[in-house]
Amino acid sequence: MSTSTINIGICGLGTVGQGVWKHIESNRAALESRLGVTLNLARASVRDLEKKRSVRIAASKLTTDPLAIATDPSIHIVCELIGGTTLARQVTLAALKAGKTVVSANKALLCKHGPQLFAAARKHGGHFFFEASVAGGIPIIKALREGLVANRFKLIYGILNGTCNYILTRMEREGLSYHAILAEAKQLGYAEADESLDVEGWDTAHKASILAFLAHGTWVPTEKMLVEGITQITQTDLAFAREHGYAIKLLAVISREADTGEVFVRVHPTLIPSTKVLANVNEVYNGISVTGDVVGETVYIGRGAGQDPTASAVISDIVDGIILLNRGNTHLPELAETRAPLTPLEAITGRYYLRLEVKDEPGVLAKISGATAKLDVSIASVLQRTSDTPGAASLILTTHQSNEKAIRSTISRLRRLSCVLGEPVLLRIADFAG
Amino acid sequence: MSTSTINIGICGLGTVGQGVWKHIESNRAALESRLGVTLNLARASVRDLEKKRSVRIAASKLTTDPLAIATDPSIHIVCELIGGTTLARQVTLAALKAGKTVVSANKALLCKHGPQLFAAARKHGGHFFFEASVAGGIPIIKALREGLVANRFKLIYGILNGTCNYILTRMEREGLSYHAILAEAKQLGYAEADESLDVEGWDTAHKASILAFLAHGTWVPTEKMLVEGITQITQTDLAFAREHGYAIKLLAVISREADTGEVFVRVHPTLIPSTKVLANVNEVYNGISVTGDVVGETVYIGRGAGQDPTASAVISDIVDGIILLNRGNTHLPELAETRAPLTPLEAITGRYYLRLEVKDEPGVLAKISGATAKLDVSIASVLQRTSDTPGAASLILTTHQSNEKAIRSTISRLRRLSCVLGEPVLLRIADFAG
Repeated sequence: MSTSTINIGICGLGTVGQGVWKHIESNRAALESRLGVTLNLARASVRDLEKKRSVRIAASKLTTDPLAIATDPSIHIVCELIGGTTLARQVTLAALKAGKTVVSANKALLCKHGPQLFAAARKHGGHFFFEASVAGGIPIIKALREGLVANRFKLIYGILNGTCNYILTRMEREGLSYHAILAEAKQLGYAEADESLDVEGWDTAHKASILAFLAHGTWVPTEKMLVEGITQITQTDLAFAREHGYAIKLLAVISREADTGEVFVRVHPTLIPSTKVLANVNEVYNGISVTGDVVGETVYIGRGAGQDPTASAVISDIVDGIILLNRGNTHLPELAETRAPLTPLEAITGRYYLRLEVKDEPGVLAKISGATAKLDVSIASVLQRTSDTPGAASLILTTHQSNEKAIRSTISRLRRLSCVLGEPVLLRIADFAG
Repeated sequence: MSTSTINIGICGLGTVGQGVWKHIESNRAALESRLGVTLNLARASVRDLEKKRSVRIAASKLTTDPLAIATDPSIHIVCELIGGTTLARQVTLAALKAGKTVVSANKALLCKHGPQLFAAARKHGGHFFFEASVAGGIPIIKALREGLVANRFKLIYGILNGTCNYILTRMEREGLSYHAILAEAKQLGYAEADESLDVEGWDTAHKASILAFLAHGTWVPTEKMLVEGITQITQTDLAFAREHGYAIKLLAVISREADTGEVFVRVHPTLIPSTKVLANVNEVYNGISVTGDVVGETVYIGRGAGQDPTASAVISDIVDGIILLNRGNTHLPELAETRAPLTPLEAITGRYYLRLEVKDEPGVLAKISGATAKLDVSIASVLQRTSDTPGAASLILTTHQSNEKAIRSTISRLRRLSCVLGEPVLLRIADFAG
């Protein structure tokens, strides 16, 4: 083959791998004409050679050994679409050590081994691309890295998990419980069989970690974040939000203090004013607001996952890889890796929404007000609602400006009151500008 | 100076030029560390050497001759921020002929002379970048060119003119007339002294032409577009829109038929459902919806103009230019220039909103219904409102699905009816998917 043929290897021919194969085939003419090269989908690795797939691939191109693709000297670009962090890491490192360009959609791999992967790419002259790892169809990695390169980012917040957004949207529209919608989402394939990574916020946290790295050059591990999921949200919360002009969204929030350089990353269900664009990003869509010191606020919306949006991102990375190959594969500019200090909890301020199940008896409100006042949490409003539990009531408190440390101490104290039944539910009210 | 110093020349030190200078200075450390080069703001051209500016620049760096900068062998990157299409073209061509990279925010220049500029860049090994020419702070050029490179674009629509969006937003919120808000916008500097390029849609049309070229590789001159502005919009139109669940926005719409490859570009005030994200993009913000065959719909929102957003875009182009310089300045992949056929008017279908001032007398509605029926325009609703003109009434018609050819013939016919006073006002109702 001539030197202007680019050989592409796809490791992992699942939903996304098949999407990449399919869309390169169907858009081949336009891509080849633009790039001035021939694209050769050379090899693909699968777990089961016999399995039926939606794309037709010659048997001679298939292997069960992704490492054989990663180390094949004829392959220029390796797409790691296996998932997980064990075999995927082996394959990625093997390809990078061979000087190849690796395109990945694997956010967990990147969060866990990012520095090692980048170092391997630097050392051996290859590249590691990962546009598909956050917000699938939205070219947010490229926007942060290139389009907004002139900016320092004081605030990035977004809806990064389609499953959670789908569940919250359906709960809001149909008045059904979290569990009812979750069951349906599983049937439709919008939620995994084990949904915990999504609904407890960890998938969002992984993506937030990648965005924080791109924006600030620092890796914030998920255990240093505040991460809360959507499993406690009920129709009572949604009704309150709606009546007061809010929508509830699971947001990742990445903030940086201009003066101290402190970074903080958090993931939590948030009441955002319904006038905000992200309050109206529904269903499986993702949305990200990026505020830069030069550009102001910019917002990006698109499908966050699924075969086609993810394939779109993978293919754009393949194209970027080819452009670099064509000009001798020199280094891309990189944000220097730093270790930024984390903002202390007492400096993470905001207003809070707190729902308590309480005994429906006299004197309860006084006890609760007393507990909050001692800890510098000032109540802005109190609303009592009937509860599904006999002898109980739902009490919804909103606070004036407070901080994470004070609200956590308050919750610990409330939990110990005998009139408080079950676990308090805490939501944040979005005050952040933009 | 060492070879790792990049000399930048700024031709035109107006609002944007000063913004570029200021933000390179203030973000210098981060940019230099990322790029591994020293950035030298080497020279700038001005019209008046004595004028006070917000950035301090040594007199030795200033010249009144932008061509001297464009042809200075020590300058690597030339920013053309002069505006207009005469001197700007001379400067751009001179710099490109010297093999330099030119960064421009000049949409008029690009629309008028794009093919010549691209040819000059290709021939002499330089580059021509223009991220700032459309939707300032939003990295939409990069998104279309790189991030969404896997896609064919059946529909792109957006709010591309901040002045018009500001006027419509304020009219909607404050109930004041177009002329009252325009006067205020001029005072605040949100509208030019001569507002016609903005409010009559031509600025939007220029930007639409650039987006159409990026998406489809074809230049659609503004005279082949349908271009209508916002000057005829009144509170009557806004009230109807609001009561029926719409917002009125000046949209650019770039559509391409998948089967025929026909492209059509139009600019017109549009009623879009208030549930759409773009209906909620207000004030001076721009917003663009891009539907790709692989990625689905993605939406981008940000400030479209002004010193800082535009500077953000110019600096990102400068950085891209430096990355290319660092690796030998080879060609970027380009969409092949084609001449796509234009969709015929009868194939541009949609629903229409038509406001007529009519004589307030019996039989008028029958005459108007008769005129529309003859031309295959089917009326969906009729609403009569009081008019400010004595003896007149406002008649608001909405149509079922029709097409541009039929609605234009209908308007010609209506104009000739003696019961129709003044010019009919036509708005489009957005039916496009996404």
